[in-house]
Amino acid sequence: MDLKGFGMDAVDDADKLPETAINEVTSFFESAPPLTDAAETEICLKEFVDRNTSLSVNGKANRVVCVTSGGTTVPLEKQCVRYIDNFASGHRGAASTEYFLKAGYSVIFLYRRGGCQPFCSLLPDDPLLECFTVADDSIIEMDPLHAETVKKAITETRAAVADGILLKLPFTTIFEYLQILQLISASLRGLGPSAIFYLAAAVSDFYVPWESMALHKIQSASGPLDMRLAQVPKMLSVLRNEWAPMAFYISFKLETDKDILLAKADMALKKYKMHMVIANELSTRKEEVIVVTEQEKVTVRRDSTQAGAEVECPLVELVVDRHSAYIKKVDA
Amino acid sequence: MDLKGFGMDAVDDADKLPETAINEVTSFFESAPPLTDAAETEICLKEFVDRNTSLSVNGKANRVVCVTSGGTTVPLEKQCVRYIDNFASGHRGAASTEYFLKAGYSVIFLYRRGGCQPFCSLLPDDPLLECFTVADDSIIEMDPLHAETVKKAITETRAAVADGILLKLPFTTIFEYLQILQLISASLRGLGPSAIFYLAAAVSDFYVPWESMALHKIQSASGPLDMRLAQVPKMLSVLRNEWAPMAFYISFKLETDKDILLAKADMALKKYKMHMVIANELSTRKEEVIVVTEQEKVTVRRDSTQAGAEVECPLVELVVDRHSAYIKKVDA
Repeated sequence: MDLKGFGMDAVDDADKLPETAINEVTSFFESAPPLTDAAETEICLKEFVDRNTSLSVNGKANRVVCVTSGGTTVPLEKQCVRYIDNFASGHRGAASTEYFLKAGYSVIFLYRRGGCQPFCSLLPDDPLLECFTVADDSIIEMDPLHAETVKKAITETRAAVADGILLKLPFTTIFEYLQILQLISASLRGLGPSAIFYLAAAVSDFYVPWESMALHKIQSASGPLDMRLAQVPKMLSVLRNEWAPMAFYISFKLETDKDILLAKADMALKKYKMHMVIANELSTRKEEVIVVTEQEKVTVRRDSTQAGAEVECPLVELVVDRHSAYIKKVDA
Repeated sequence: MDLKGFGMDAVDDADKLPETAINEVTSFFESAPPLTDAAETEICLKEFVDRNTSLSVNGKANRVVCVTSGGTTVPLEKQCVRYIDNFASGHRGAASTEYFLKAGYSVIFLYRRGGCQPFCSLLPDDPLLECFTVADDSIIEMDPLHAETVKKAITETRAAVADGILLKLPFTTIFEYLQILQLISASLRGLGPSAIFYLAAAVSDFYVPWESMALHKIQSASGPLDMRLAQVPKMLSVLRNEWAPMAFYISFKLETDKDILLAKADMALKKYKMHMVIANELSTRKEEVIVVTEQEKVTVRRDSTQAGAEVECPLVELVVDRHSAYIKKVDA
């Protein structure tokens, strides 16, 4: 691959003046294809936040977390046949959602269409075909091996949605993701420090601006294909500073190279003024993560003595603890 | 997007000498990451073909179709975080598999991991969460609205796999897809005209050669990203002429621009010596397709008077009819 003006020692451009960042974001949104159902999504969010901020669960009234999950896609054509995708099963966000609900938070789950869902992480890939059989009298029977997992998945999902403490919003493209995130930030702005943004989604760094995109499917031809992708504006800095400046912010860094992982996590913490950055290495991300804050670096590991224990359990515990301290500090 | 040496009037390079094509294919395979489980897949295929060619179902003994389905991905990094994907739900291949099985064919279903499965096309997106409820006594109950669809999906999938007439092989990347397709062609070569290749998968046209791929995640940096992608060798011509030259071949063309669709279908028919090319327009592909052969262009439409009728039903009927005629002609 030919990577011009590109290298491992490259620096992020978040040092730019905030005004430049705001202008870039404005022009990104102006050129983006309009979000379908924007009005419905706004109403939905307003109702969800109103309802949940009037509740008091486990003494943690008003606490709402926006969990983002899965990878965004970048269309290469307007009538999309080809796109660039980011690897992300969505497992981290889905599992974390469960633990936030257990901790008494209401959750807005902004997830990649088709990605992992809360309470479903222990199910096999194709649960319907693998967990059920049809007996001769055409009664559907559950494979006893999966019975408990299946019951838990269905019961807990239905309960959370019925109780109105879980709002699921799907996205596919980078355009949808950022536009919905903006709507969410507007609905959570009023909560001040009680809102968390837990940004586990794998967001594309590069995209093809909508107005310069091919209308129809790119034709294959003799010779190689040269593509130029623009950088996605650093939305995180606008979200943090402008859209919902009092909220508690957690972002994620995923790298395959451990050497640059912690350096990038530190950089993100400072440049974007995150409260916590969760550093993941691709190969070990299900076993442990490193939580980077201004004061400390904490390695959080899953409880390997317990079958099915997930790293998201102690991770969310730590987040809730630091969030409580943050609220206390702001309120003081 | 900057598309050098590129345009709507571009011509495919299938006019090249076959030797050039064979060399390109050889070097593609040599540089590809080795297929995991290649030996197991070969054994699986041999057993499947041996068993099925000794059966006689509905007087159509020995007929085996390889149905390919879903889009291939092109990794942009060796430890894959980002990749280019082709849009394809896999619905065409999954539905066609059902009709081939009903017509007495054995099916090798080469499908994109996570894509549509045969007998499951009428299920909602998330069947487990949408079709079942848990009653108070913690018994799982099926939503009556979906009961018949769910029963059919489970019963027919299990029956086809148990009868040994359906072999499912998953792929994700272009490298896996082409390597497994080569193994399938070797296993079907001996069947001569009784084998069909029904190539509904959306195969990437461009890829990043493995040896020039970045090892680690590409770092975002100031400024745009320039990428150079190489053309995937025209494997179809080698498959058709070298790997299984007596089989019956059906390929698919998907375009968003109707004007160039039929021209491209005609070109594919002649250059790759296909027996049929199925021309799909993105927006109407679930309603109708145009079947292009040397003799005719037939528009095949789904039976819109019947609820749930699919275009794949009359399409596979037509394919089976033309395949029978082809066998008769070759055997004469």
